[in-house]
Amino acid sequence: MSLPLRVIQYGLGAMGSVMAKMILEKRDLKLVGAIAHHAEDAGKDVGEFIGLRKKIGVKVSHDPERLFRRVKADVVLHATVSYVPKVWEQIEPAVRAGLSVITIAEEMGYPFYKYPKLCRIMDRAAKKHGVSILGTGINPGFAMDVLPLLLTGICEEVWSIRVTRLINFAPFGAAIQKNIGIGMTPKAFRSGIASGKLPLHLGMPECVHEMADALQWKIDQIRETRRPVIAKRNVRVPGYKSVAKGTVVGFEHRCFGYTRGKVKILLEELGNVDPKLPYSNTVTIDGNPRLLEKMNVPMGNLTTTSHAVNVLPAVARARPGLLSMRDLPVVACLPHKRPRS
Amino acid sequence: MSLPLRVIQYGLGAMGSVMAKMILEKRDLKLVGAIAHHAEDAGKDVGEFIGLRKKIGVKVSHDPERLFRRVKADVVLHATVSYVPKVWEQIEPAVRAGLSVITIAEEMGYPFYKYPKLCRIMDRAAKKHGVSILGTGINPGFAMDVLPLLLTGICEEVWSIRVTRLINFAPFGAAIQKNIGIGMTPKAFRSGIASGKLPLHLGMPECVHEMADALQWKIDQIRETRRPVIAKRNVRVPGYKSVAKGTVVGFEHRCFGYTRGKVKILLEELGNVDPKLPYSNTVTIDGNPRLLEKMNVPMGNLTTTSHAVNVLPAVARARPGLLSMRDLPVVACLPHKRPRS
Repeated sequence: MSLPLRVIQYGLGAMGSVMAKMILEKRDLKLVGAIAHHAEDAGKDVGEFIGLRKKIGVKVSHDPERLFRRVKADVVLHATVSYVPKVWEQIEPAVRAGLSVITIAEEMGYPFYKYPKLCRIMDRAAKKHGVSILGTGINPGFAMDVLPLLLTGICEEVWSIRVTRLINFAPFGAAIQKNIGIGMTPKAFRSGIASGKLPLHLGMPECVHEMADALQWKIDQIRETRRPVIAKRNVRVPGYKSVAKGTVVGFEHRCFGYTRGKVKILLEELGNVDPKLPYSNTVTIDGNPRLLEKMNVPMGNLTTTSHAVNVLPAVARARPGLLSMRDLPVVACLPHKRPRS
Repeated sequence: MSLPLRVIQYGLGAMGSVMAKMILEKRDLKLVGAIAHHAEDAGKDVGEFIGLRKKIGVKVSHDPERLFRRVKADVVLHATVSYVPKVWEQIEPAVRAGLSVITIAEEMGYPFYKYPKLCRIMDRAAKKHGVSILGTGINPGFAMDVLPLLLTGICEEVWSIRVTRLINFAPFGAAIQKNIGIGMTPKAFRSGIASGKLPLHLGMPECVHEMADALQWKIDQIRETRRPVIAKRNVRVPGYKSVAKGTVVGFEHRCFGYTRGKVKILLEELGNVDPKLPYSNTVTIDGNPRLLEKMNVPMGNLTTTSHAVNVLPAVARARPGLLSMRDLPVVACLPHKRPRS
């Protein structure tokens, strides 16, 4: 692997534009191309497009296949959609062009159980072209898989795992708040859940499978529950209309992994827009010893994009194939070009 | 790598005998030999020797070279001494016999800076014989290197790192308490520090170098300070004579890693025998975002031995050479033969 690593940013939305900025800041990375969603943005300078107020000499592309063929690159950093089939449709040309891929698509965090056939196809294609494919982010990719697994490594025995993530959605803005049902009536929320229009947090079953595989546990049932949290008073959310008493102010999304009727893994994401709610990520390892670990994990956007960018060199060095975070060594923060010391 | 992995336990003292018991409990491991310190223990059954009250059909050896030549094994798990030159003297015959080695010797956690020449020798020997050598434990190996590094991976930028470990030595017994100067007069403690007879916690400079290398930071100075904590009252320690007012009841051992006069990494171990003191391990990442992580890490013995045992398969699969924890994927707890579910 020669440095700087040449990176194409696939997707320049809320996440992708942050990742493009990070790539430009990092000493060992070089942004050599970027792909936007709308045809009319093709040809614009990426620097200006992502709000840097200066040109960087790289043009926005709307033709991925052509870009992959024409630009010399090492890795594609992908941030467009969440579901595996659509991801594969988009990244297959990159793999065929000999480029490794990192995606923040939640389902790609551990796709082997939901899409076994497609995973064999992706793995074969990656190996054929000598490249690696990895899904990562803060969750999946860290909070509910890598971090708790790391903690099990210092235990003599582990019987069950619980991860609780409190997320305050107040700073995320109205669009994301709408996606999680904020302000809905309880009835509308429940029908959104039933129809699949309100998936809430994607990727928890993937994390259950990833940890169970690493621990050699046989999980024979996975169950998800999604419940609304109803406002008991009118809640003022800065930058958002108030949430009225009796409507949805948050959610409780849980994923249970069972072995013979016993909960071995419980993952829960408790989201809320009440500005007073703290962020936290708590891992409880019921084992010998019993471990209790707690940290703040602020702003999923920043940590997801940072993790995906910091893992770039490790993926460039990794064995070919469809990988998960379990295959990679510990990821550390990459240095900036001009580090503040 | 074929399972079960065949393991020789080198050292059957306080740590080694716990590791031997763990190996016997794990589904994918098989204890095929064990080496004790005293010649008179040779020939005893290992099961009885480590206090299991039953024979396991493996005899205690006092002739490592002969054991390595005669017994078919994959990895040696080493737990005898703390310093690199003596470790290498003991494990070289294992490497020459084609066995990988995991040691809990603190200095082996990241020996590349203190022993560059010896590390080249160890690395060459390991590669020549196609085996891996790794130092690990809870610290070095987890608390002040792997865990904080993992946290930096979700940050956009990191400026400095602080790890504070509070350790209650009350349950460790009189021998270990004597090693850390408990009950000494402040004067005797200080002269013990000055003469090197009271090293307190070994391995912090190693952790500083390990993290700095991973983060591509240039550390130009490392400084350690060791201070006594003086009892302000008589302190009752269960299972130990009381610590008299005015004598040493604990210590503060710090290691500072500097870049151009600025502290980039601060590691501190605060030890005490006051039974009311809690265990905790706190990591502060000064970066974007700022992270604060806290966990209990009870009883260094249990977590050190567990980590060294759980890493066995990863080391058997690793590339040949002298490794550090930075080279390995996330270590998860190995399953028991008869898991409690």
